[in-house]
Amino acid sequence: MAGNSFGEIFRITTFGESHGAAIGVIIDGCPAGLKIDTAFIQQEMQRRKPGQSKITTQRKEEDEVEILSGIFEGKTLGTPISFLIRNTDQRSKDYDEMKSVYRPSHADFTYQEKYGIRDYRGGGRSSARETAARVAAGVIAKLLLKTAGVEIKAFVSSVGNLALQKDYTQLNLNEAEKNIVRCPDKKVAQAMITMIEKARKAGDTLGGTVSCVVQHCPVGLGEPVFDKLHADLAKAMLSINATKGFEYGSGFQGVKLKGSEHNDIFEKKGNKIITKTNHSGGIQGGISNGMDIYFKVAFKPVATIMQAQASVNEAGDKAVMKGKGRHDPCVLPRAVPIVEAMAALVLADHLLRSKVSKL
Amino acid sequence: MAGNSFGEIFRITTFGESHGAAIGVIIDGCPAGLKIDTAFIQQEMQRRKPGQSKITTQRKEEDEVEILSGIFEGKTLGTPISFLIRNTDQRSKDYDEMKSVYRPSHADFTYQEKYGIRDYRGGGRSSARETAARVAAGVIAKLLLKTAGVEIKAFVSSVGNLALQKDYTQLNLNEAEKNIVRCPDKKVAQAMITMIEKARKAGDTLGGTVSCVVQHCPVGLGEPVFDKLHADLAKAMLSINATKGFEYGSGFQGVKLKGSEHNDIFEKKGNKIITKTNHSGGIQGGISNGMDIYFKVAFKPVATIMQAQASVNEAGDKAVMKGKGRHDPCVLPRAVPIVEAMAALVLADHLLRSKVSKL
Amino acid sequence: MAGNSFGEIFRITTFGESHGAAIGVIIDGCPAGLKIDTAFIQQEMQRRKPGQSKITTQRKEEDEVEILSGIFEGKTLGTPISFLIRNTDQRSKDYDEMKSVYRPSHADFTYQEKYGIRDYRGGGRSSARETAARVAAGVIAKLLLKTAGVEIKAFVSSVGNLALQKDYTQLNLNEAEKNIVRCPDKKVAQAMITMIEKARKAGDTLGGTVSCVVQHCPVGLGEPVFDKLHADLAKAMLSINATKGFEYGSGFQGVKLKGSEHNDIFEKKGNKIITKTNHSGGIQGGISNGMDIYFKVAFKPVATIMQAQASVNEAGDKAVMKGKGRHDPCVLPRAVPIVEAMAALVLADHLLRSKVSKL
Amino acid sequence: MAGNSFGEIFRITTFGESHGAAIGVIIDGCPAGLKIDTAFIQQEMQRRKPGQSKITTQRKEEDEVEILSGIFEGKTLGTPISFLIRNTDQRSKDYDEMKSVYRPSHADFTYQEKYGIRDYRGGGRSSARETAARVAAGVIAKLLLKTAGVEIKAFVSSVGNLALQKDYTQLNLNEAEKNIVRCPDKKVAQAMITMIEKARKAGDTLGGTVSCVVQHCPVGLGEPVFDKLHADLAKAMLSINATKGFEYGSGFQGVKLKGSEHNDIFEKKGNKIITKTNHSGGIQGGISNGMDIYFKVAFKPVATIMQAQASVNEAGDKAVMKGKGRHDPCVLPRAVPIVEAMAALVLADHLLRSKVSKL
Repeated sequence: MAGNSFGEIFRITTFGESHGAAIGVIIDGCPAGLKIDTAFIQQEMQRRKPGQSKITTQRKEEDEVEILSGIFEGKTLGTPISFLIRNTDQRSKDYDEMKSVYRPSHADFTYQEKYGIRDYRGGGRSSARETAARVAAGVIAKLLLKTAGVEIKAFVSSVGNLALQKDYTQLNLNEAEKNIVRCPDKKVAQAMITMIEKARKAGDTLGGTVSCVVQHCPVGLGEPVFDKLHADLAKAMLSINATKGFEYGSGFQGVKLKGSEHNDIFEKKGNKIITKTNHSGGIQGGISNGMDIYFKVAFKPVATIMQAQASVNEAGDKAVMKGKGRHDPCVLPRAVPIVEAMAALVLADHLLRSKVSKL
Repeated sequence: MAGNSFGEIFRITTFGESHGAAIGVIIDGCPAGLKIDTAFIQQEMQRRKPGQSKITTQRKEEDEVEILSGIFEGKTLGTPISFLIRNTDQRSKDYDEMKSVYRPSHADFTYQEKYGIRDYRGGGRSSARETAARVAAGVIAKLLLKTAGVEIKAFVSSVGNLALQKDYTQLNLNEAEKNIVRCPDKKVAQAMITMIEKARKAGDTLGGTVSCVVQHCPVGLGEPVFDKLHADLAKAMLSINATKGFEYGSGFQGVKLKGSEHNDIFEKKGNKIITKTNHSGGIQGGISNGMDIYFKVAFKPVATIMQAQASVNEAGDKAVMKGKGRHDPCVLPRAVPIVEAMAALVLADHLLRSKVSKL
Repeated sequence: MAGNSFGEIFRITTFGESHGAAIGVIIDGCPAGLKIDTAFIQQEMQRRKPGQSKITTQRKEEDEVEILSGIFEGKTLGTPISFLIRNTDQRSKDYDEMKSVYRPSHADFTYQEKYGIRDYRGGGRSSARETAARVAAGVIAKLLLKTAGVEIKAFVSSVGNLALQKDYTQLNLNEAEKNIVRCPDKKVAQAMITMIEKARKAGDTLGGTVSCVVQHCPVGLGEPVFDKLHADLAKAMLSINATKGFEYGSGFQGVKLKGSEHNDIFEKKGNKIITKTNHSGGIQGGISNGMDIYFKVAFKPVATIMQAQASVNEAGDKAVMKGKGRHDPCVLPRAVPIVEAMAALVLADHLLRSKVSKL
Repeated sequence: MAGNSFGEIFRITTFGESHGAAIGVIIDGCPAGLKIDTAFIQQEMQRRKPGQSKITTQRKEEDEVEILSGIFEGKTLGTPISFLIRNTDQRSKDYDEMKSVYRPSHADFTYQEKYGIRDYRGGGRSSARETAARVAAGVIAKLLLKTAGVEIKAFVSSVGNLALQKDYTQLNLNEAEKNIVRCPDKKVAQAMITMIEKARKAGDTLGGTVSCVVQHCPVGLGEPVFDKLHADLAKAMLSINATKGFEYGSGFQGVKLKGSEHNDIFEKKGNKIITKTNHSGGIQGGISNGMDIYFKVAFKPVATIMQAQASVNEAGDKAVMKGKGRHDPCVLPRAVPIVEAMAALVLADHLLRSKVSKL
């Protein structure tokens, strides 16, 4: 109801403000008996954490995850799994100016109007710091999906106006993790890094897109009518800070094709029914069909820039705001594990939901 | 859980297969005391119904809505409102072929795999006929929103590769309902109609986009973290049959801008705080900021074409499928009231949710 | 949210006012492939329907259930199952007096205050007529439970101050359906019938208790912490009109025992672990342990009596109210199938929920 | 879904095993702007904590509540409020025996069967330690209710076969907190204390009842049909460990009255409509009518006794179990704040839900 939970059977609830005592997450509904690789949790946190490379914010947060409950002798108990992440490297003073002035294209104004109060330090609840909790929860989802063979790989597919031209099927997605921008094409990656550094030096920021591919998804995930698999993925992705759009399969380009060009023809391959093409993006009628699921998410340029900007304060009086603090010139590289985590949460939930579809 | 409900406080549940006895909807959580204009219900049904013009399917379904409960002496009781729409013009024989052969890019295969059974007649539950129930429910949502001044206007912004070039602010959106394709630019509308007729004659189909604008939305709708207003809109839109993507505000184009170009600067206008530009699309941090909310939805070309296509049957054997029945060459004109209805359902729900945000 | 739905996975939503067009129910989340015995639906409706014997109300409502969706060729589709029951024998004139005067111990006053409007005819939504929809839905739940071997038997265990003295284990529960008061002890049944007839002649009404036994329930149903099996049963039972209390296992009497007397000792029987005694009522820690689940529900005397009573109208002015219409002198016999239906709904839901408890 | 959450708008999720790192709770949906008295939190924890008197367990747990989020400068932010309570005085060795042997009338067997794994130390998730989190959350609910004038007072109304004979209206409920058994009648309290001490010395345990009165509840709380106020109270109470029954208003005794005796006659008092008697227990048709709400909850004798008992181990082999550890001979005194907390959670939720009932 208040928007801090996600999922139906496999359900997470996150909590915490960026400059409060801690953030964290409760994962409820994970089946008992799942083996938990705690090293994997920390490994995923590393992929999201600030200060990981020269093109991300230089804040230092170790984002150590403390397991409070739900795991016993290395396995899930079937009870709520809770993760706690203390907030450590907070420089709340950097945010004094935000106490009264609304940062452009941030949530300061809308939170103040909605709640009549806000924790102005670093954006409080609206800070992308909240996504650390999602990444931690996503690990449990990924481990559950692994038992069904499902694999999820996200990567940066564009930064500003520089986009990967190759289709994901022409790329080795494992290359993505080998460079700091997380783009599977080495050359394009290098160009992206250069762009981001340039933007950072100019005190400016860049947006871009993250693409994601889900492989080996069983047939039958997704619930008609409202909880179509792609509808839940869309919601999941657009719940991530700074997102502006979502498309799956043929997406916005697909609308330009004719039906005769767009339809995916069925055929038998071994003892499986597959489709020749995959404009459907692995989902038909809202339900996975066994082909690769792929989708793309748009992220706007980071709103905090290191330039003076006009704004107003709570009273509506003019004010000038200059970005302080340590911020990302481009969130895309750090968004990759977040996109994967949200995809994993959607799929884990639908995997469990599919267990009760038929007798 | 099984995906047939939508919304938290203002919550609908739809039911019915396209060739069963009836379809319908229960609307639970509508506040008591709302005046219901029953003529308006039927009026909206007209906008969605088949056979309304030469560019839609020629099926004749009157889609008369019977009110079963929840309304007394012209007002809502605070109890569930139920609408029943009988299925009338069904030619189930047209669908005999579908009994065993999977239609390409339809839900036949995935439903069969998921449930082990399906009502193959006209797609059963996966048929877009289900959206008639949403339009009926959307009327109640629209009436509730009207009490808060909110207005919603959708229109066709592209068909195939022919797109409106003007921004919505340069158009008179009321023009959209004056032509059968529902595009607010008369000339472009005419070209779209010609394109659709041509496709129909070729036994082919077209996709396109619907854009939607929400005006006079109060500040404060939308719940962080997961139920951001745009996240719920994205889910709502992608739950509509045949959709492939969603973007709001600056959308996928916005990612190419720099932060310094993209940020919306606050200023005071009268006693309100507004933004100079509106790349944010009326939503910041997931919460409405009082500016226009605008978004775009991608629809793929209709999968049922009047051409022979290769396919397989349930056993995986090769089969040829030729579209029969009466189908839309392009769903865009009829999708307009559905997009509006889903937007209204999201906003009505968030309007009620916002009532308990603060003391 | 508005209280018209029940269950998590196996979830029903009822609708309808007693004197509106119809009442009905949507059952969402029933697995696909369940065989539906439609005769059984009507048979259960007979057990609840008015006019079934001389000790119930003489209203004549056939309560014919029309299936609108979700069932195809005799099996569930996995899509929402909808049942429609038209309201037929309505004499709304009988209720004209209720338009302004509040009936004592009814919901007239509270509905009016809560909603600012009410359908005063026969209680509208607050009428026990709504339970017809629950009985219809309960049939689907019973059929699902049957696939797991679960059986549910309710019976009248007291009327007024006349209570069955024997424990359920000493009785043949199948005897209950052989008399019109639904008490499994023939002699006690006869005395109850006499009592009810006497009350009816005096224009008065009686309360009582319904007991219910669930046999062959698998181990493992019920979710800690809040959705303990008995907690959900309690809620289910107290959601039935006119109920005042719930106890399971040793109940209110059990609190008088010492721990050493009350504990149920485990032992092995065949290859099963059972308990020697069953004070636990088949539920330990909120989870079924495989023993019989048994519980008791208290029903107050019917509030509508055929005697003059003082009351007030909406303005608070004094008024005299005399019961009109055709009412039950005692709801107990007709409550039996309702108690069973609600128990079935709880158990069916928890049966499905238990499918995702462990890997 | 997995049963660890409670409430719809005002919703809590608890986590933690009794011998894990910590227990805690997230409260989501509390409106922004509520002043939080942190001393009151600790004060309520004192009422529930072990070791508070000679008639409770002698375990020493300070149950200090750390606030992790949701409160800023003394007020709620509208974001999730999180409380963390570390587990400190754990003597896990006391529980080694439980590793393989099932304690009679505990949840060991059912958890093991349901999940295939369990944290056997002190009952793990099934331990009543979890209720500490509820008491902490209940404080926030109480503070919210205070803004509407609502007051909740629970007390011990019976221990074993010794019951308060006076009606709550004849007692000064504030006396309850003045003695260690929390019974508002001094003499009866003393007798209860003597009984409990005697049971403890005998290595045995006692059950009893807690009664609760809610005063100054606004008219209109409670949602028909399934979420009747008393149905939600029943569920809340039966979700507390060791409960066996619930009754409200006239309860199980009321069923013996005739309708003409039981009906509560309306009358005007000042400008309010009240009822002369209150058999309805302040709730009519599931909705509060402004009169006192009162109900009673049955608690079984504590299952852990300091006597040897026969049992079986996981393999079903015979075993002897002798209670070790430090346990309550009677939970009633410590149950009082838990009953109040659960009542507060139900009422706070329904208070918020009532805000959207009408336009």
